[in-house]
Amino acid sequence: MALLVQKFGGTSVGTVERIEAIAEKVQRFREQGHDIVVVVSAMSGETNRLVDLAYQMHDTPTPRELDVILSTGEQVTIALLSMALNRRNCPATSYTGWQVPIKTDSQHNKARIESIDTDGVRADLDAGRVVVVAGFQGVDSAGNITTLGRGGSDTTAVALAAALEADECQIYTDVDGVYTTDPRVVEGARRLDKITFEEMLEMASLGSKVLQIRAVEFAGKYNVTLRVLHSFEDGPGTLITLEEQDEMEQPVVSGIAFNRDEAKLTIKGVPDIPGVASRILGPISKANVEVDMIVQNVADDKSTDFTFTVHRNDFQKALAVVGNTSDELGAREFDGDNRIAKVSIVGVGMRSHAGVATRMFEALAAEGINIQIISTSEIKVSVVIAEKYLELAVRALHSAFELDQEPTAE
Amino acid sequence: MALLVQKFGGTSVGTVERIEAIAEKVQRFREQGHDIVVVVSAMSGETNRLVDLAYQMHDTPTPRELDVILSTGEQVTIALLSMALNRRNCPATSYTGWQVPIKTDSQHNKARIESIDTDGVRADLDAGRVVVVAGFQGVDSAGNITTLGRGGSDTTAVALAAALEADECQIYTDVDGVYTTDPRVVEGARRLDKITFEEMLEMASLGSKVLQIRAVEFAGKYNVTLRVLHSFEDGPGTLITLEEQDEMEQPVVSGIAFNRDEAKLTIKGVPDIPGVASRILGPISKANVEVDMIVQNVADDKSTDFTFTVHRNDFQKALAVVGNTSDELGAREFDGDNRIAKVSIVGVGMRSHAGVATRMFEALAAEGINIQIISTSEIKVSVVIAEKYLELAVRALHSAFELDQEPTAE
Repeated sequence: MALLVQKFGGTSVGTVERIEAIAEKVQRFREQGHDIVVVVSAMSGETNRLVDLAYQMHDTPTPRELDVILSTGEQVTIALLSMALNRRNCPATSYTGWQVPIKTDSQHNKARIESIDTDGVRADLDAGRVVVVAGFQGVDSAGNITTLGRGGSDTTAVALAAALEADECQIYTDVDGVYTTDPRVVEGARRLDKITFEEMLEMASLGSKVLQIRAVEFAGKYNVTLRVLHSFEDGPGTLITLEEQDEMEQPVVSGIAFNRDEAKLTIKGVPDIPGVASRILGPISKANVEVDMIVQNVADDKSTDFTFTVHRNDFQKALAVVGNTSDELGAREFDGDNRIAKVSIVGVGMRSHAGVATRMFEALAAEGINIQIISTSEIKVSVVIAEKYLELAVRALHSAFELDQEPTAE
Repeated sequence: MALLVQKFGGTSVGTVERIEAIAEKVQRFREQGHDIVVVVSAMSGETNRLVDLAYQMHDTPTPRELDVILSTGEQVTIALLSMALNRRNCPATSYTGWQVPIKTDSQHNKARIESIDTDGVRADLDAGRVVVVAGFQGVDSAGNITTLGRGGSDTTAVALAAALEADECQIYTDVDGVYTTDPRVVEGARRLDKITFEEMLEMASLGSKVLQIRAVEFAGKYNVTLRVLHSFEDGPGTLITLEEQDEMEQPVVSGIAFNRDEAKLTIKGVPDIPGVASRILGPISKANVEVDMIVQNVADDKSTDFTFTVHRNDFQKALAVVGNTSDELGAREFDGDNRIAKVSIVGVGMRSHAGVATRMFEALAAEGINIQIISTSEIKVSVVIAEKYLELAVRALHSAFELDQEPTAE
């Protein structure tokens, strides 16, 4: 007898048959006595269809109007799922973002949730109804429809769970949980029973696309218990918790994340004076290129080398910008490489264990893999290597940190 | 420099190219200095697609949820048209029904407009913006999305024109005005410059499907000047006015309406006692069959003949009901015919001219057309004839009342 917020993404509600299957699943939870709030995305393909229509009208569609059209995607799904539940004699009521209301700021296409008024939802829950809420959308103080940006349905679910003080926020996906690494790369990849928010953040931002980063941040901030589960297969999924696990069970490294969508750019021999970093990255940012890793090495006492990575799609654009900056700064040379990959080990256990990075570097060296860049945070170590070594590196690290085995005390 | 409400139906906004053409048209009016409120329907085919989806989930979709899904159709169109206008540097803002808000009662799928708050729309108009409103939809006092039923966009346009005290409500369609009769049947059919609301009501209900009856009623009630025009061809259209035209220009008959979708049912020799009509029509109404004409003839001093017409699609259902009723009432016999058609002459001029019905009957007799039923109102005379004579009858009447000629004093 719990209050559960259950979120189903676009693929899970992609066809009439799948919506039917979700209705059956929700009904089972309802019959166990749980109060259920369901958050759904647009049927897969629908958002792209609407975006296409918009871009046929205008090559830079009015942001406000883009939200008006995009928000119809989830509105269709909430109605269909509510109908399917009602047909099963499971009373259900749909809510658009503005009907809840989920109040956001006025940044169209990437609005942030400011507050949620849960009176209506609570009244329906108290009346024994399932509440079906449109993800990804809200309303600003002037009554304009807003959207939270792609993947915002996860954020909607977590924010609703926080506002309703739900017992658990369940994110249903096409995987049965969070894995130690991508099972397509490492055969022995293992589903984690638990992972901390911090680890999940590092895993998500590094390419484990199970959950939206914003949703995880939100869940951590408001202490919402998150669980990742498979939409159509039963199983415990992975619990994402605020607390670190007991020391006895604590593995040093929880998972190996990787990302092959990166490219690196280096300017060598730039003057080592204040303001150089911003003079290099300012124009990049102005060109709307997002930067991931930033590494600066002192080369000699008057000049320095500066390296950063960007999404591979932005490589040519970034290279042109860096060429200009390099001339302006009188740098010795600049170059770039879009055949790289980033591999990271992630784990809160690193905090209390020395030598984790060393073990990582040794494992890579044993395979003859050269490390181009190293970057660390409190709970992760990332390296950039040549793309061709990616799978080899991930497998070597997965094995070196014994991730294919159930964790034991160390 | 007028305030115009312009309504474009599903065919007029059926493709991206057509929405583009409408944007161009609206912009032209805007550049002439007019304030413009545009009301649009869902892109043609979209409502059917959404209804199909709903019926795949539930064979009797929850009425509330049906409104949630159907209302997305117009929401897509308002966003697209606003984008197209913005791209032309013609500032535009879209409004869903709840954003206006257009407040309705809570009868889902067939809600009635109760009030419209025009503050937001007026502020946008005053700021020089075109306002694009979703037709067909509203919101009830509890914040539920409602729809006005099919064709409700006309009603939205008229209601907005009334609330805004607009100078004219322009209904854009695929015809360039209201004709004396269907030009596909009578070559000499002529576009009317003006028609009265009452005549339009009779023409609309009799099968001239240019305008929704409810919208015309609404326009008459609130004294909204209506004009029917072609979406993609320039022209004056037909003005629908409250006032009758000057006597000098008054034609006796304004148009010939007809309807071939009817079937008639007759019970002969039913007891001529109070309550018989309701005992016959009660079960018909309970079977959800709508009745059009009702005619009762006294056959002899103890019994009567009772005839009514229904939509042809309901003929078999109605016949079965009538069979039962006939037995219960001890009627002599019953029969039906679904090969009939109704032809009507319509004109406010009839009020002051005797002999109009006689002229109609003579014209039909001259062609050897037998009249099965006659029914009259203050401004129309309808007859039911065998369907095979329909075109012949319409042409004969069009000619007899000289409708192919510009009206002159009589």
